[in-house]
Amino acid sequence: MEKSDSVTISVPPWVDELGDRRARFETDDARMALVIGLSQRNVDEGGGPFAAAVFQGSRLVASGVNRVLASGLSIAHGEIVALMRAQRFERDDPQPQIEGASYELFTSTEPCCQCFGALIWSGVARLVCAATTADAESIGFDEGPKPDRWTDVLEKRGIAVQLGLHRAAAQQVLGDYARRGGPIYGLRHPTIR
Amino acid sequence: MEKSDSVTISVPPWVDELGDRRARFETDDARMALVIGLSQRNVDEGGGPFAAAVFQGSRLVASGVNRVLASGLSIAHGEIVALMRAQRFERDDPQPQIEGASYELFTSTEPCCQCFGALIWSGVARLVCAATTADAESIGFDEGPKPDRWTDVLEKRGIAVQLGLHRAAAQQVLGDYARRGGPIYGLRHPTIR
Repeated sequence: MEKSDSVTISVPPWVDELGDRRARFETDDARMALVIGLSQRNVDEGGGPFAAAVFQGSRLVASGVNRVLASGLSIAHGEIVALMRAQRFERDDPQPQIEGASYELFTSTEPCCQCFGALIWSGVARLVCAATTADAESIGFDEGPKPDRWTDVLEKRGIAVQLGLHRAAAQQVLGDYARRGGPIYGLRHPTIR
Repeated sequence: MEKSDSVTISVPPWVDELGDRRARFETDDARMALVIGLSQRNVDEGGGPFAAAVFQGSRLVASGVNRVLASGLSIAHGEIVALMRAQRFERDDPQPQIEGASYELFTSTEPCCQCFGALIWSGVARLVCAATTADAESIGFDEGPKPDRWTDVLEKRGIAVQLGLHRAAAQQVLGDYARRGGPIYGLRHPTIR
Protein backbone atom coordinates (compact mmCIF):
# COMPACT_ATOMS: atom_id res chain seq x y z
CA MET A 1 0.00 0.00 0.00
CA GLU A 2 1.13 3.52 -0.69
CA LYS A 3 2.04 5.77 2.21
CA SER A 4 -1.01 7.02 4.09
CA ASP A 5 -0.07 10.64 3.46
CA SER A 6 -0.32 10.38 -0.31
CA VAL A 7 -2.64 9.28 -3.08
CA THR A 8 -1.26 8.25 -6.45
CA ILE A 9 -3.04 7.92 -9.76
CA SER A 10 -1.11 5.87 -12.32
CA VAL A 11 -1.62 5.11 -15.98
CA PRO A 12 -0.57 1.88 -17.70
CA PRO A 13 2.57 1.96 -19.88
CA TRP A 14 0.61 1.69 -23.14
CA VAL A 15 -0.81 5.19 -22.56
CA ASP A 16 2.56 6.81 -23.24
CA GLU A 17 3.41 4.26 -25.91
CA LEU A 18 0.32 5.14 -27.95
CA GLY A 19 0.62 8.79 -26.93
CA ASP A 20 4.33 9.29 -27.47
CA ARG A 21 5.23 12.71 -26.08
CA ARG A 22 8.05 13.04 -28.62
CA ALA A 23 5.68 12.65 -31.57
CA ARG A 24 4.02 15.63 -33.23
CA PHE A 25 0.28 15.89 -33.80
CA GLU A 26 -0.11 18.49 -36.49
CA THR A 27 -3.88 18.58 -36.89
CA ASP A 28 -7.01 18.44 -34.75
CA ASP A 29 -7.83 15.20 -36.58
CA ALA A 30 -4.57 13.62 -35.48
CA ARG A 31 -5.09 14.80 -31.90
CA MET A 32 -8.59 13.42 -31.67
CA ALA A 33 -7.58 10.18 -33.36
CA LEU A 34 -5.04 9.64 -30.59
CA VAL A 35 -7.63 10.30 -27.90
CA ILE A 36 -10.19 7.95 -29.39
CA GLY A 37 -7.52 5.30 -29.87
CA LEU A 38 -6.67 5.61 -26.18
CA SER A 39 -10.33 5.26 -25.21
CA GLN A 40 -10.66 2.09 -27.29
CA ARG A 41 -7.51 0.61 -25.79
CA ASN A 42 -8.79 1.46 -22.30
CA VAL A 43 -11.94 -0.54 -23.03
CA ASP A 44 -9.82 -3.41 -24.35
CA GLU A 45 -7.86 -3.34 -21.09
CA GLY A 46 -10.94 -3.34 -18.86
CA GLY A 47 -11.21 0.38 -18.14
CA GLY A 48 -13.94 2.92 -18.85
CA PRO A 49 -14.57 4.07 -22.44
CA PHE A 50 -13.07 7.54 -22.01
CA ALA A 51 -9.73 9.22 -22.73
CA ALA A 52 -8.35 12.73 -23.07
CA ALA A 53 -5.12 14.55 -23.83
CA VAL A 54 -3.63 18.02 -23.42
CA PHE A 55 -1.85 19.52 -26.40
CA GLN A 56 0.05 22.74 -26.92
CA GLY A 57 -0.11 23.21 -30.67
CA SER A 58 1.34 20.04 -32.18
CA ARG A 59 3.00 19.06 -28.91
CA LEU A 60 1.38 16.33 -26.81
CA VAL A 61 1.76 17.55 -23.23
CA ALA A 62 0.07 14.55 -21.58
CA SER A 63 -2.50 11.83 -22.21
CA GLY A 64 -4.98 10.36 -19.78
CA VAL A 65 -7.50 7.55 -19.66
CA ASN A 66 -10.36 6.89 -17.28
CA ARG A 67 -8.95 5.17 -14.20
CA VAL A 68 -12.00 5.14 -11.91
CA LEU A 69 -12.26 1.36 -11.77
CA ALA A 70 -8.53 0.73 -11.43
CA SER A 71 -7.83 3.47 -8.90
CA GLY A 72 -11.02 3.35 -6.85
CA LEU A 73 -11.13 7.15 -7.16
CA SER A 74 -14.26 8.82 -8.48
CA ILE A 75 -12.18 11.80 -9.60
CA ALA A 76 -10.08 9.74 -12.02
CA HIS A 77 -11.88 10.60 -15.25
CA GLY A 78 -9.82 10.78 -18.43
CA GLU A 79 -9.84 14.58 -18.46
CA ILE A 80 -8.64 14.84 -14.87
CA VAL A 81 -5.86 12.31 -15.40
CA ALA A 82 -4.68 14.18 -18.51
CA LEU A 83 -4.82 17.58 -16.79
CA MET A 84 -2.99 16.39 -13.67
CA ARG A 85 -0.27 14.77 -15.74
CA ALA A 86 0.03 17.84 -17.98
CA GLN A 87 0.43 20.20 -15.04
CA ARG A 88 2.94 17.90 -13.37
CA PHE A 89 5.01 17.41 -16.56
CA GLU A 90 5.06 21.15 -17.25
CA ARG A 91 6.39 21.76 -13.76
CA ASP A 92 8.84 18.87 -13.36
CA ASP A 93 9.82 17.83 -16.88
CA PRO A 94 9.12 20.79 -19.14
CA GLN A 95 9.54 20.35 -22.87
CA PRO A 96 10.23 23.14 -25.37
CA GLN A 97 7.19 25.41 -25.57
CA ILE A 98 5.32 25.94 -28.83
CA GLU A 99 5.43 29.70 -29.15
CA GLY A 100 2.06 31.39 -29.06
CA ALA A 101 0.12 28.14 -28.64
CA SER A 102 -2.34 27.69 -25.79
CA TYR A 103 -3.06 24.50 -23.92
CA GLU A 104 -5.96 22.56 -25.41
CA LEU A 105 -7.85 19.59 -24.02
CA PHE A 106 -9.15 16.96 -26.42
CA THR A 107 -11.62 14.51 -24.92
CA SER A 108 -13.39 11.48 -26.33
CA THR A 109 -16.70 12.50 -24.71
CA GLU A 110 -18.02 15.87 -23.52
CA PRO A 111 -16.99 16.53 -19.90
CA CYS A 112 -19.25 15.58 -16.99
CA CYS A 113 -20.11 18.12 -14.30
CA GLN A 114 -16.88 17.36 -12.41
CA CYS A 115 -14.58 17.74 -15.40
CA PHE A 116 -16.48 20.83 -16.55
CA GLY A 117 -15.65 22.45 -13.22
CA ALA A 118 -12.05 21.27 -13.21
CA LEU A 119 -11.52 22.77 -16.67
CA ILE A 120 -12.25 26.23 -15.30
CA TRP A 121 -9.08 26.20 -13.15
CA SER A 122 -6.91 24.08 -15.43
CA GLY A 123 -5.24 26.67 -17.63
CA VAL A 124 -6.70 25.15 -20.78
CA ALA A 125 -7.87 27.66 -23.41
CA ARG A 126 -9.70 25.31 -25.77
CA LEU A 127 -11.82 22.20 -25.37
CA VAL A 128 -12.48 19.80 -28.26
CA CYS A 129 -14.96 16.93 -27.75
CA ALA A 130 -15.97 13.89 -29.80
CA ALA A 131 -19.01 12.03 -28.40
CA THR A 132 -21.77 14.06 -26.81
CA THR A 133 -23.32 14.08 -23.37
CA ALA A 134 -26.34 12.34 -24.88
CA ASP A 135 -24.12 9.65 -26.41
CA ALA A 136 -22.64 8.84 -22.97
CA GLU A 137 -26.06 8.89 -21.37
CA SER A 138 -27.49 6.62 -24.06
CA ILE A 139 -25.33 3.74 -22.76
CA GLY A 140 -26.25 4.49 -19.14
CA PHE A 141 -23.58 6.91 -17.91
CA ASP A 142 -24.70 10.02 -16.10
CA GLU A 143 -22.93 13.27 -17.00
CA GLY A 144 -24.35 15.13 -14.04
CA PRO A 145 -25.65 18.66 -13.55
CA LYS A 146 -23.67 21.05 -15.72
CA PRO A 147 -24.82 24.66 -15.87
CA ASP A 148 -27.36 25.51 -18.56
CA ARG A 149 -25.57 26.33 -21.81
CA TRP A 150 -22.32 25.01 -20.36
CA THR A 151 -20.39 25.62 -23.56
CA ASP A 152 -21.33 29.31 -23.40
CA VAL A 153 -20.19 29.40 -19.78
CA LEU A 154 -16.80 28.04 -20.81
CA GLU A 155 -16.54 30.47 -23.72
CA LYS A 156 -17.25 33.38 -21.37
CA ARG A 157 -14.41 32.11 -19.19
CA GLY A 158 -12.03 32.21 -22.15
CA ILE A 159 -12.22 28.53 -23.07
CA ALA A 160 -13.18 27.98 -26.71
CA VAL A 161 -15.31 24.89 -27.31
CA GLN A 162 -15.67 22.62 -30.33
CA LEU A 163 -18.09 19.70 -30.23
CA GLY A 164 -18.59 16.57 -32.29
CA LEU A 165 -15.13 16.11 -33.84
CA HIS A 166 -14.88 12.42 -34.81
CA ARG A 167 -18.13 11.82 -32.94
CA ALA A 168 -19.00 8.64 -34.84
CA ALA A 169 -15.69 7.00 -33.93
CA ALA A 170 -16.17 7.87 -30.27
CA GLN A 171 -19.74 6.57 -30.35
CA GLN A 172 -18.38 3.25 -31.61
CA VAL A 173 -16.14 2.98 -28.55
CA LEU A 174 -19.05 3.72 -26.22
CA GLY A 175 -21.17 1.16 -28.03
CA ASP A 176 -18.41 -1.43 -27.84
CA TYR A 177 -18.17 -0.89 -24.07
CA ALA A 178 -21.92 -1.29 -23.66
CA ARG A 179 -21.98 -4.47 -25.76
CA ARG A 180 -19.24 -5.98 -23.60
CA GLY A 181 -21.32 -5.24 -20.50
CA GLY A 182 -18.82 -2.79 -19.02
CA PRO A 183 -19.82 -1.49 -15.58
CA ILE A 184 -21.67 1.82 -15.48
CA TYR A 185 -19.92 3.38 -12.48
CA GLY A 186 -20.84 6.82 -11.18
CA LEU A 187 -23.69 7.87 -8.93
CA ARG A 188 -25.43 4.51 -8.99
CA HIS A 189 -22.22 2.68 -8.17
CA PRO A 190 -20.24 5.18 -6.16
CA THR A 191 -16.81 4.43 -4.87
CA ILE A 192 -17.41 4.52 -1.14
CA ARG A 193 -21.13 4.41 -0.47
CA MET B 1 10.79 13.21 -9.66
CA GLU B 2 8.01 10.68 -9.43
CA LYS B 3 7.63 8.13 -12.17
CA SER B 4 6.22 9.60 -15.36
CA ASP B 5 3.29 7.20 -15.31
CA SER B 6 1.90 8.45 -12.02
CA VAL B 7 0.86 11.61 -10.23
CA THR B 8 0.89 11.77 -6.44
CA ILE B 9 -0.82 14.23 -4.14
CA SER B 10 0.60 14.23 -0.62
CA VAL B 11 -0.42 15.94 2.60
CA PRO B 12 2.00 17.06 5.31
CA PRO B 13 2.22 14.94 8.50
CA TRP B 14 0.42 17.50 10.64
CA VAL B 15 -2.81 16.83 8.72
CA ASP B 16 -3.18 13.37 10.27
CA GLU B 17 -1.79 14.56 13.61
CA LEU B 18 -4.51 17.20 13.95
CA GLY B 19 -7.04 14.92 12.30
CA ASP B 20 -6.28 11.70 14.13
CA ARG B 21 -8.25 8.93 12.44
CA ARG B 22 -8.46 7.02 15.73
CA ALA B 23 -10.20 9.92 17.48
CA ARG B 24 -13.99 10.25 17.57
CA PHE B 25 -15.84 13.38 16.50
CA GLU B 26 -19.22 13.10 18.12
CA THR B 27 -20.87 16.31 16.93
CA ASP B 28 -21.07 18.46 13.83
CA ASP B 29 -19.41 21.18 15.90
CA ALA B 30 -16.43 18.96 16.62
CA ARG B 31 -16.19 17.93 12.96
CA MET B 32 -16.25 21.49 11.68
CA ALA B 33 -13.84 22.66 14.37
CA LEU B 34 -11.32 20.12 13.07
CA VAL B 35 -11.77 21.29 9.48
CA ILE B 36 -11.37 24.97 10.35
CA GLY B 37 -8.33 24.14 12.48
CA LEU B 38 -6.81 22.38 9.49
CA SER B 39 -7.51 25.38 7.25
CA GLN B 40 -5.80 27.73 9.72
CA ARG B 41 -2.79 25.45 10.00
CA ASN B 42 -2.59 25.26 6.21
CA VAL B 43 -2.39 29.06 6.08
CA ASP B 44 0.28 29.03 8.80
CA GLU B 45 2.27 26.55 6.68
CA GLY B 46 1.99 28.57 3.48
CA GLY B 47 -0.95 26.82 1.86
CA GLY B 48 -4.37 28.02 0.77
CA PRO B 49 -7.01 28.85 3.42
CA PHE B 50 -9.16 25.79 2.79
CA ALA B 51 -9.61 22.35 4.33
CA ALA B 52 -12.17 19.55 4.34
CA ALA B 53 -12.78 16.14 5.86
CA VAL B 54 -14.95 13.09 5.25
CA PHE B 55 -16.72 11.58 8.24
CA GLN B 56 -18.92 8.54 8.67
CA GLY B 57 -20.84 9.35 11.81
CA SER B 58 -18.25 10.07 14.50
CA ARG B 59 -15.51 8.38 12.51
CA LEU B 60 -13.01 10.54 10.66
CA VAL B 61 -12.46 8.76 7.34
CA ALA B 62 -9.92 11.25 5.94
CA SER B 63 -8.86 14.89 6.13
CA GLY B 64 -7.59 17.10 3.35
CA VAL B 65 -6.14 20.56 2.92
CA ASN B 66 -5.72 22.68 -0.16
CA ARG B 67 -2.50 21.60 -1.92
CA VAL B 68 -2.72 23.62 -5.14
CA LEU B 69 0.39 25.66 -4.45
CA ALA B 70 2.47 22.76 -3.10
CA SER B 71 1.44 20.23 -5.74
CA GLY B 72 1.16 22.45 -8.79
CA LEU B 73 -2.18 20.76 -9.49
CA SER B 74 -5.29 22.89 -9.97
CA ILE B 75 -7.44 19.93 -8.87
CA ALA B 76 -5.90 19.78 -5.40
CA HIS B 77 -8.59 21.64 -3.48
CA GLY B 78 -9.23 20.61 0.13
CA GLU B 79 -12.42 18.77 -0.76
CA ILE B 80 -10.76 16.76 -3.53
CA VAL B 81 -7.81 15.81 -1.35
CA ALA B 82 -10.16 14.67 1.43
CA LEU B 83 -12.37 12.69 -0.98
CA MET B 84 -9.44 11.00 -2.71
CA ARG B 85 -7.89 10.01 0.59
CA ALA B 86 -11.23 8.80 1.95
CA GLN B 87 -11.89 6.60 -1.06
CA ARG B 88 -8.37 5.20 -0.98
CA PHE B 89 -8.44 4.50 2.78
CA GLU B 90 -11.82 2.79 2.52
CA ARG B 91 -10.44 0.53 -0.19
CA ASP B 92 -6.94 -0.19 1.13
CA ASP B 93 -7.10 0.36 4.90
CA PRO B 94 -10.75 0.03 5.89
CA GLN B 95 -11.72 0.80 9.47
CA PRO B 96 -14.80 -0.54 11.29
CA GLN B 97 -17.92 0.93 9.70
CA ILE B 98 -20.36 3.03 11.71
CA GLU B 99 -23.59 1.15 11.11
CA GLY B 100 -26.25 3.12 9.31
CA ALA B 101 -24.09 6.22 8.93
CA SER B 102 -23.50 7.83 5.54
CA TYR B 103 -20.37 9.54 4.36
CA GLU B 104 -20.42 13.29 4.99
CA LEU B 105 -18.09 16.00 3.71
CA PHE B 106 -17.34 18.95 5.96
CA THR B 107 -15.61 21.85 4.25
CA SER B 108 -14.31 25.17 5.52
CA THR B 109 -15.76 27.04 2.52
CA GLU B 110 -18.60 26.19 0.13
CA PRO B 111 -17.32 24.14 -2.82
CA CYS B 112 -16.22 25.78 -6.07
CA CYS B 113 -17.59 24.59 -9.41
CA GLN B 114 -14.99 21.81 -9.62
CA CYS B 115 -15.64 20.42 -6.14
CA PHE B 116 -19.39 20.78 -6.63
CA GLY B 117 -19.10 18.47 -9.63
CA ALA B 118 -16.76 16.04 -7.92
CA LEU B 119 -19.19 15.71 -5.00
CA ILE B 120 -21.81 14.28 -7.35
CA TRP B 121 -19.72 11.13 -7.97
CA SER B 122 -18.05 10.90 -4.58
CA GLY B 123 -20.49 8.77 -2.61
CA VAL B 124 -21.00 11.51 -0.01
CA ALA B 125 -24.59 11.88 1.21
CA ARG B 126 -24.26 15.14 3.17
CA LEU B 127 -22.30 18.35 2.70
CA VAL B 128 -21.68 20.78 5.58
CA CYS B 129 -20.03 24.13 4.83
CA ALA B 130 -18.67 26.97 6.99
CA ALA B 131 -17.71 30.09 4.99
CA THR B 132 -19.82 31.03 1.99
CA THR B 133 -19.05 31.47 -1.69
CA ALA B 134 -19.34 35.22 -1.12
CA ASP B 135 -16.85 35.05 1.76
CA ALA B 136 -14.25 33.39 -0.48
CA GLU B 137 -14.94 35.83 -3.30
CA SER B 138 -14.66 38.79 -0.91
CA ILE B 139 -10.91 38.09 -0.54
CA GLY B 140 -10.44 37.61 -4.27
CA PHE B 141 -10.97 33.91 -4.88
CA ASP B 142 -13.28 32.86 -7.69
CA GLU B 143 -15.67 30.00 -6.96
CA GLY B 144 -16.59 29.55 -10.61
CA PRO B 145 -19.83 28.78 -12.41
CA LYS B 146 -21.93 26.47 -10.28
CA PRO B 147 -25.47 25.69 -11.47
CA ASP B 148 -28.19 28.04 -10.30
CA ARG B 149 -29.50 26.93 -6.91
CA TRP B 150 -26.60 24.52 -6.60
CA THR B 151 -27.67 23.37 -3.14
CA ASP B 152 -31.05 22.31 -4.55
CA VAL B 153 -29.23 20.43 -7.31
CA LEU B 154 -27.23 18.51 -4.72
CA GLU B 155 -30.34 17.81 -2.63
CA LYS B 156 -32.09 16.40 -5.69
CA ARG B 157 -29.08 14.12 -6.19
CA GLY B 158 -29.44 12.79 -2.64
CA ILE B 159 -26.81 15.00 -1.01
CA ALA B 160 -28.17 16.95 1.95
CA VAL B 161 -26.62 20.41 2.38
CA GLN B 162 -26.08 22.56 5.46
CA LEU B 163 -24.50 25.99 5.11
CA GLY B 164 -22.90 28.45 7.51
CA LEU B 165 -21.84 26.15 10.36
CA HIS B 166 -19.02 28.01 12.19
CA ARG B 167 -19.00 30.56 9.40
CA ALA B 168 -17.44 33.32 11.52
CA ALA B 169 -14.46 31.14 12.42
CA ALA B 170 -13.90 30.21 8.78
CA GLN B 171 -14.20 33.86 7.74
CA GLN B 172 -11.41 34.66 10.19
CA VAL B 173 -9.12 32.18 8.45
CA LEU B 174 -9.91 33.69 5.04
CA GLY B 175 -9.29 37.17 6.45
CA ASP B 176 -6.00 36.08 7.98
CA TYR B 177 -4.87 34.69 4.62
CA ALA B 178 -5.78 37.93 2.86
CA ARG B 179 -3.97 40.07 5.46
CA ARG B 180 -0.82 37.99 4.99
CA GLY B 181 -0.99 38.60 1.24
CA GLY B 182 -1.51 34.95 0.34
CA PRO B 183 -1.61 34.32 -3.40
CA ILE B 184 -5.04 34.20 -5.03
CA TYR B 185 -4.49 31.24 -7.33
CA GLY B 186 -7.20 30.02 -9.69
CA LEU B 187 -8.24 31.38 -13.04
CA ARG B 188 -6.09 34.48 -12.87
CA HIS B 189 -3.02 32.48 -11.87
CA PRO B 190 -3.60 29.09 -13.46
CA THR B 191 -1.15 26.29 -13.10
CA ILE B 192 0.01 25.86 -16.66
CA ARG B 193 -1.08 28.84 -18.72
